[in-house]
Formats: sequence, C-alpha cells, structure tokens
Amino acid sequence: MCTPLTPERDLDVPSLERLVGFLLDAGVHGLFVTGSTGEVAYLPDEVRYRTLDVVAGAVAGQVPVLAGIVDTTTARVIGHARASKEHGAQALVATAPFYAPTAPVEFPGHFRAIRAAVDLPLVAYDIPGSVHAKLPPEVVAELAADGTLDGLKDSSGDLDGSRTVLELTGDTDFRVFTGSETMADVALFLGSHGLVPGLGNVDPHGYVRLYEAARRGDWVAAAAEQRRLRALFRMVEVGGTRVGPYASAIGAFKHALVARGILASGTTSLPMQPLDDREQSTVDTLLADAGLLDGPA
Amino acid sequence: MCTPLTPERDLDVPSLERLVGFLLDAGVHGLFVTGSTGEVAYLPDEVRYRTLDVVAGAVAGQVPVLAGIVDTTTARVIGHARASKEHGAQALVATAPFYAPTAPVEFPGHFRAIRAAVDLPLVAYDIPGSVHAKLPPEVVAELAADGTLDGLKDSSGDLDGSRTVLELTGDTDFRVFTGSETMADVALFLGSHGLVPGLGNVDPHGYVRLYEAARRGDWVAAAAEQRRLRALFRMVEVGGTRVGPYASAIGAFKHALVARGILASGTTSLPMQPLDDREQSTVDTLLADAGLLDGPA
Amino acid sequence: MCTPLTPERDLDVPSLERLVGFLLDAGVHGLFVTGSTGEVAYLPDEVRYRTLDVVAGAVAGQVPVLAGIVDTTTARVIGHARASKEHGAQALVATAPFYAPTAPVEFPGHFRAIRAAVDLPLVAYDIPGSVHAKLPPEVVAELAADGTLDGLKDSSGDLDGSRTVLELTGDTDFRVFTGSETMADVALFLGSHGLVPGLGNVDPHGYVRLYEAARRGDWVAAAAEQRRLRALFRMVEVGGTRVGPYASAIGAFKHALVARGILASGTTSLPMQPLDDREQSTVDTLLADAGLLDGPA
Amino acid sequence: MCTPLTPERDLDVPSLERLVGFLLDAGVHGLFVTGSTGEVAYLPDEVRYRTLDVVAGAVAGQVPVLAGIVDTTTARVIGHARASKEHGAQALVATAPFYAPTAPVEFPGHFRAIRAAVDLPLVAYDIPGSVHAKLPPEVVAELAADGTLDGLKDSSGDLDGSRTVLELTGDTDFRVFTGSETMADVALFLGSHGLVPGLGNVDPHGYVRLYEAARRGDWVAAAAEQRRLRALFRMVEVGGTRVGPYASAIGAFKHALVARGILASGTTSLPMQPLDDREQSTVDTLLADAGLLDGPA
Repeated sequence: MCTPLTPERDLDVPSLERLVGFLLDAGVHGLFVTGSTGEVAYLPDEVRYRTLDVVAGAVAGQVPVLAGIVDTTTARVIGHARASKEHGAQALVATAPFYAPTAPVEFPGHFRAIRAAVDLPLVAYDIPGSVHAKLPPEVVAELAADGTLDGLKDSSGDLDGSRTVLELTGDTDFRVFTGSETMADVALFLGSHGLVPGLGNVDPHGYVRLYEAARRGDWVAAAAEQRRLRALFRMVEVGGTRVGPYASAIGAFKHALVARGILASGTTSLPMQPLDDREQSTVDTLLADAGLLDGPA
Repeated sequence: MCTPLTPERDLDVPSLERLVGFLLDAGVHGLFVTGSTGEVAYLPDEVRYRTLDVVAGAVAGQVPVLAGIVDTTTARVIGHARASKEHGAQALVATAPFYAPTAPVEFPGHFRAIRAAVDLPLVAYDIPGSVHAKLPPEVVAELAADGTLDGLKDSSGDLDGSRTVLELTGDTDFRVFTGSETMADVALFLGSHGLVPGLGNVDPHGYVRLYEAARRGDWVAAAAEQRRLRALFRMVEVGGTRVGPYASAIGAFKHALVARGILASGTTSLPMQPLDDREQSTVDTLLADAGLLDGPA
Repeated sequence: MCTPLTPERDLDVPSLERLVGFLLDAGVHGLFVTGSTGEVAYLPDEVRYRTLDVVAGAVAGQVPVLAGIVDTTTARVIGHARASKEHGAQALVATAPFYAPTAPVEFPGHFRAIRAAVDLPLVAYDIPGSVHAKLPPEVVAELAADGTLDGLKDSSGDLDGSRTVLELTGDTDFRVFTGSETMADVALFLGSHGLVPGLGNVDPHGYVRLYEAARRGDWVAAAAEQRRLRALFRMVEVGGTRVGPYASAIGAFKHALVARGILASGTTSLPMQPLDDREQSTVDTLLADAGLLDGPA
Repeated sequence: MCTPLTPERDLDVPSLERLVGFLLDAGVHGLFVTGSTGEVAYLPDEVRYRTLDVVAGAVAGQVPVLAGIVDTTTARVIGHARASKEHGAQALVATAPFYAPTAPVEFPGHFRAIRAAVDLPLVAYDIPGSVHAKLPPEVVAELAADGTLDGLKDSSGDLDGSRTVLELTGDTDFRVFTGSETMADVALFLGSHGLVPGLGNVDPHGYVRLYEAARRGDWVAAAAEQRRLRALFRMVEVGGTRVGPYASAIGAFKHALVARGILASGTTSLPMQPLDDREQSTVDTLLADAGLLDGPA
C-alpha cells in the first residue's frame, strides 16, 4: 500500500481510508502496509504506526494486515515488531540487515531473534535492490523448516530462486508471495501463493483478475491481463534520470491514484522530487491505454 | 568511537568513559560517536542518545563531539539531528539516503533539508560500502559553496575523489576527513585535514603520531607509522568468511580494546556473531607485533 | 555443445563426433558450437574452426549449425564471422563488445557492421555474466526490426527482458532462444522459440521432452521434466569455491559425458583446474538420481 | 601508446612513427604498445603485430618495448606472447582471464603457463574495469616470489592494493607501474617504480617532469604537475553518455594528438563513435588551459 501524504507531508488519513476501501472493493485478500512502496524508509516511527492504526481500523478484520518492520538491524527491527503488533499488525515483514555490510551467516540469527521477540507470523522480505544482499533460498528454507519464517515476500526479481524456495518448502504451509509487477503470472505458474505488487495500488482489479485466472489454470487469460499490466507498469520510468528511479516510481503510483480519484495529493516524501506536468501527463496516457481513465487529463 | 556493550548488550557506561579518557589522553582533537564503527545501525534510538550523553559529559568540552545521524532518509535523519543536538552534539555527520534506491539528483535536497532543520555544522558522510551510492565530488563542492556542508568524512576509499573535493573547495574553511585506516598518510599528503579511523579506537597514539608527522611534513615518519598501522589493521580480517566482514572488524576492534584494558567486554550487537578463541588470539598477536601488548594472551 | 579435448588439450575428434551423434539421436533441432559451454574463450582460432569443420561434417545438413563468434570487438568478431562461414556455419551468434568498457549506444553499430560483413543469419548472444553488459530489449527489437538480427540467445537469466523482446518482436520471424537450464519451461511459456542449455549436452533427451511437452501445451509435464533437470543442474556447483564457478560447471558437464560414455576424457582448457574424485563422484550421484546412470561409479 | 588509424581504419604508420619520436623526445623510459589505450581489444592480430613491428623498428633499442598480450584465456594469450616476441617485444603484459567467469584460484596457473611458454619478462596487468576481476595483492606477491612475474601494471585505481604489493615485494627487483593518470604522484610517493598513463600520449613531457620531481623527492613540484594533468585528464569525459566512456577517452586522446600535430587522424576503431565538433573543441580548450595549445582551434 502507498502511504498518502498531504502537500505538507503529513499522513493524509481520508485518502488512506479511501485507498483501503478501493483495495478491499477490488477483492484483495490482505493488505501490506509500510512496505517499500509505502515509503517506509521515509516515514518517522510515529507516522508508520499511525498508518497502521488507520489501516487496521478501516479494514476491521475483513482481511489480514501485514506490516513492514524495515530497519537496519535486529534490535531496531524488534522495536518496530513490538510496536506494529500493538498497532494492529497480524503479521510482520522483515528484511535482512542493511547499511552494515552483513553476510548470509548472520541472517538466521537475525530472523530467529525477531521471531522470538514477538509472537506474530513472520515473513522474510527479499529485496536486494534496497538491502544489497540476496536471501539465499537455502537459508529461507532452513528458517521455514524450523518455524521461524511463515512466508517470503520475494521482491528480488529472481524467479529461479523463488522456484528453489518453493521446491524446498513443498508440502508445508510456507507461503511465497511475489513482489513482481511484471512476472506475476509466471510466479503463480511456478507455485507462488500470492501477489504483493506496488502497481496493485493503481489497478487492484487487474491483479485480482490475474490471480483468479491463474487459480483456475487459465494461463492464457492470466498472460493477457499481465500484458496489459506490463504496459501500465511503464509508468515507473516516467521521471527517468531526472528525478531518480524511486521518486519516479512512487511519484507515478501516487499521481495515478490522484487521477483515479483515490488520493487527494500525489505528494511524496523528501528528498524525492515531484513529477512534472509532462511526466504526470504520460502517466495519464498509460492509465487511459490500460482502460483506467477516459482519456489524458 | 566504538560503543561498548555489556554481555547483555546494554550500554557499558564505565567502559565508554574509559574509552573517552583513553582517546583524550592520546591527544585526539575530536570525537565521533555513533558512526559505523560505533555500531550506529545496530543501536536503538535511546542507546544512541545515551551514548552521546555519556561522551559529551566525559569530554566536558575539551574537544568537539560529532554525532552520526545515520538513518534511511531525510525526515528520519532530521529526527536524529534534533535529538543529537539536545544530547550534546556539536556537529552532525549524515550519509546520503539509503535503502530506497535514491539518485545523486536527490542528495542536495537531502542535505539542505537537514541543515535547515538543525543549526549545527553538518559533515557529509561518504560511505558507499554501507549506502551503496557515492557522493559525487561536484555535489559535495556545490553544497560546500552554498554553506550547507562544513566538511566531508570520506570513508569511500576513493582518494581520487577526495582530491577532487579538496581542489574544488581549495581556499575555504571546508574540511575533509578521511575514514581510511590504511591510507591516512596519503590523505594528509593530498591535503585532507584530519583522520577518523575506526582503528583509532585501538591505537589512538599511533594515529596522533602519524598526523603530527604529516603536519610537520615528515612524510617518511608518517609512512613508517602508517606501515605499522597497516599491519595492525589486518585484525579486521580475522573472522573472515566465518562471521562476515563487519562482525569481524567490530569484533576485532572491541577484543583489542579488552586486551588493552579499556573495555570490560568485547560484546557486539545482534546479529553479529562473536570471534572465537583462535580469532581473538590472532588479534592479540597483531597487537603484540604492533608493540601494543607484551605478548599473546 | 561442449568441445571435447584430449588429455593433452587437443581437439578430440572422435569424441566430438560421438557427441554430435548423441545429440542428433536425442532429437535436437540445431547445434550451437563454440559457445560459452564450448569453451570458446579458451580455444585458439584454429581449434575453433576445426571444431566447426568436424561438427558441420558430422551433421551433414540434418540440422542447422550455429557458430559462436565470440571476441572483444567488431573487427575481431567479423574475422571469426568470415572464417566460420567458410567452415560451415549456417548462422552466427555474436555478443556485445567486451573487455573495452562499451556502452549500449555502441551496440547497434557493432551488430550492423557484423551483419553487413557476412551474409548469414545473425543471432545476438546476451550473456552479461561474461560480457558485463546487458543487451537492452529495446536495442534488440530495433535491430530485429531493421533486419540486422534474426534472433536472440538469452543467457542473461532476465526472463522479464526476454518477455519484453517477445512483446516487441511479436508477429515477426524473430526467434528468441533461452540459455537457461533451470527456467526453460518458463521461457517457452512466455513464448520463446527454443532452448540452448549447456546441460543439454548431458541430457538432450530431457530437454527435447520438455520442449515437446511445452509445444503441446502440457505445462505440468514440462514442469516435471524441468524439476528433474533442475536437480541435475546442481552438478555445476560441485567444484564450488575450490576451482571457481566456470571450471566447476564445464568440468561437471564433461565428466558427466565421460560417465555417459560419450567423451573419452573430461579434460578442460587452461587455466581451469580439474574436478577431484569426490567432486566427480557427486556428479555421478546426480546423474544416477536423474535416471541417467545405473549408480555412482 | 595510442594506435593511430587512417580514416579507413588501417594502421597509420607515419603517424605511429611520429608518436614514437614524440614520446622518445619527451624522455620516456619505455614504450607500452597494444595496451588498453592502444585499442588492443579492437585490433585484429595482424594489426597488433604490425604495430609492434613499426614501434620496435622506430625505437631501435633506445628504450624497452613492452607488448600487451590481451586475450580471454591462457592458450590464446600464449599465442600472442609467442608472436609478440617474434615481432620485437622485450617484455609482455598480460591480464587475468576474462569473458569466462574465472576465479582467483585460476590466476597463478594462468600466469605460470604464459611465463613457461615464452622466455620474456612478464608483467601482470591489473585492470578490473575491463577484466571484471581484481588481482589480489597476495597472488601477485606469490607470483613475484617464484619468478613468474617481473612486474605489475596497476590500472585498478586501488592504491591501497598497490601499496600492499610494494610491501610484500619490498627488497626485490619486482617493479610496480601505475596506470593512473590522476594519482601518479601518489603512486610514486608509495614507492611505485614508474608510470604508464594513457594521457602520457598527449603530454609525455608533463609526466616525465612529474616523475623526475618525485625521484628527487620534490613532492610539491610533483603535486603541482599532477594538478595540471588532472585538469587535462578531464578530456576523457568529453563525450559523456553520448558515445560511452571508452569512445570518449580514446577519442579525446587521439583528437588531442591531432591538435598537437602528431596524428593525421583521430579515427578510432569500430564500434566506437567519433567525437563531434563541440566535443573536439572542448578538448582543444583543455589543451590550451594546460599550456599545450596556443588556443582553441
């Protein structure tokens, strides 16, 4: 989930509640707050927890709420884990340590300490683009086997690794979710259990249709939906080198949600720079091409 | 500065006060707390600020105290900046944003927002090994020229880039400090103003001698001191692939400080694993070879 | 195709002819010689061309023979292109420039000059693990559209990029082949036209079965075959850090072909080091597990 | 040394002879042909060897001629070693293997096989920007100790590693040359024995002055010369992202040599694109600023 902000960069509660409603109406089976797309790395602690409060309140138990507990190392992550449980999270999503140059040998101890500290299901968040380390499939499988991890959110783009995790955790309750916007059908084809795409904020109905097509084994319909969503996803490149890749992606998602009438403002956190008029107009065109707007604004 | 911990991983205040005294006695001209060697990325906020309290109290104004305000993005860094000022910091040291895949175009806005929020001298911390981005010399120079930055702590290992910054900031008050343990003499030869080496915790007298030799232009003496310190620095490799590079380095520094009688315990933060007996013994040998211990323990 | 060598590191012609027969009997639709698995980067020019002579002679037109024309830059690649045509190649496979730090802006000129120099179908070889640059899908599509490229051998592991190429070249004769051993079923699912896996030397029957299952839309059978081949492919890790990744992979393929009675010797080129007895025995076990040997030797 | 080409991309022998004379007149102590700046990766074998013939003839024994024997792996490098000896090389310069993903464990065998095959002094060429692997100082020292290597050309930019090699080879005849244009004074300060800068084609007098200042211990004069050469070196960025980094650097060097009256043409090899008028004019300005031209053309 995106985290809507006012032009003054405060949490925009009405927009957040609208976004929850929009996603639930589309038929999503869970909500993941304070993840990368939610600008978690940009939010002070109090904003993270208020976001969780608002979402947990608006969801009112209809679907599970997962909270990203993103911080540099174990003790700091455990702090977020405890607070997130208090603020209504039903499961936690944690990355490997970052900033400090850690090594795979440290990953088991990291996740075990988190799991031991807070009694909630724990999902490993594999996001090498941010963490600059890949969770080895064997480590994930080891932590699945001993009950530390209940699932994996794979935002690594490494479908081969995802497949290895699925092979190694085969007949268990372990769940693999892909963060890929563009290969979601393939991830489901390989046995993944669910989708957590950032673009799902913009077109949740599309991803729900894709998921349902895959569940009934209609891979042709899934691929057709995926193709439309792949074209739509090109919005993340709209700001290109002018604003940087992340400001471009988050700015595009938020502008698209403004264009669709869900968010009041496309404001993003500092130091991200806003999209300009031309870039916003390109997002509008992509929305229209995907059948989500009547025409460019 | 290292951050001493008790075996239960609480802040070890008496050891921290001993470490301050050890460094001041050696003649250092300033103290940098909650930096990478200080395990800043491992410390909960309250431990960061207590560390700063203890150091500021022990220093009692004899030398400036600089505080690392290390966090993922602008708003979170500003939170640390405000708190660090309250807890006695006289200057702030901030990295580029991390975790989120930022771009150089965002760096000026990041540092300007920090500087505008808290009225203390601001030093940019260039540490691509942790941040996974390099501060371009031109950006540093631009932010020096407009008064945003007062200095650079260069832990990038890129002496060529340091030299460019020095050329571009030439006749100003801008200060460049190197974080290099092994090329400190060269950094001074190139015009850098000071040294902030992690190994300086273990052998502050050596780095002070190196600095003073360079100040009087005695490059032969500086290089001889550097050579001894280069050999001593090999302690960071002692844990090798067994515990990972960072656990090895921090573990070695802390064990050396135990061996030298400054710290009560070599405990490091989770998820770092401790050095084993053989590795600790290798550190002792390196200390003895450098003339800092009577012999291996 | 592997390039069989005698213990003295000369081309082993009888083994090479046996390998051709083994692959043709398995039902392959083409042969790719002097590719990465063929140790092309290790072979002097005369050995490359003799290999091509032998294969072209043994194949005798039953299937097309494609030749890797792997060298650092345009003029050198064109030299191989001319010679390979003379020695019986029916299509050419060329990488982007390497060694010199080139840029995507140079890729179109590179491939156009090769295509203009030698009148044979040209396949782009996308292998960032060796070339340290990725062929952008848009560049491939541009060169497909203007008739420079007839196909792509994608050894990048980037299925998302492959999919973009397939979308952009949609209804044309452009052909995409995957070099992936472990995601071959997915590549076919996405619309790729064929498989060029190094492990296909060891188990060509398996990959032919996988291909045929995919052609008839039986994705469950394809995935089951793929799963067996994924386990078999673990042979590439057998030498691990002892001999390095490439020596491990090529050594494993060649030992497996010795174990299956096709090659007389598992000798690899200098400076690759041979697998030891334990490592060879692990390959035997993997072969037996895959149903390709009666039991470990 | 640059390799001058005619507009038709044949070897330009008169320009090459002029370049030899220009360098000898400036006082260089040796010539390195068919290195990276010499476009070695772009030259067919026959052009490499003709270049060597011409240079060896023009030098006529006044200074040693070193030849780059750059190719992917051992057997191919040995072929160049043999031919280069026949064509007048007095020492050979070889990189680690590339293209194939080799590992440091293979490096000793590689260099030993080259040294055993051809009886000429052998210099290791450490150029990770092209080879994508770093020669570990310990490996270089091991090969120095056993007589395989006589020297190191360090184009890695890793002065710390260079320093380690110098420490490990201390009181021997092993020679370390830096390929750095911008830190040549520091390399000499650290004990390196010589300079092999690509920019030395353009301003050999400057680098000879820098070298001589360092030899007499006048580091202030060396640094002043270095500063002028650092500014001049910015010519390598002139083509920026338009033509790619290598085309920019080689194009700038060759245009500068045209501007200085040494080369008849600034033509570079395919697929490099030429500098445009504006870029050439910027090179002229940098030459004028460095005192090497009366004014922009």
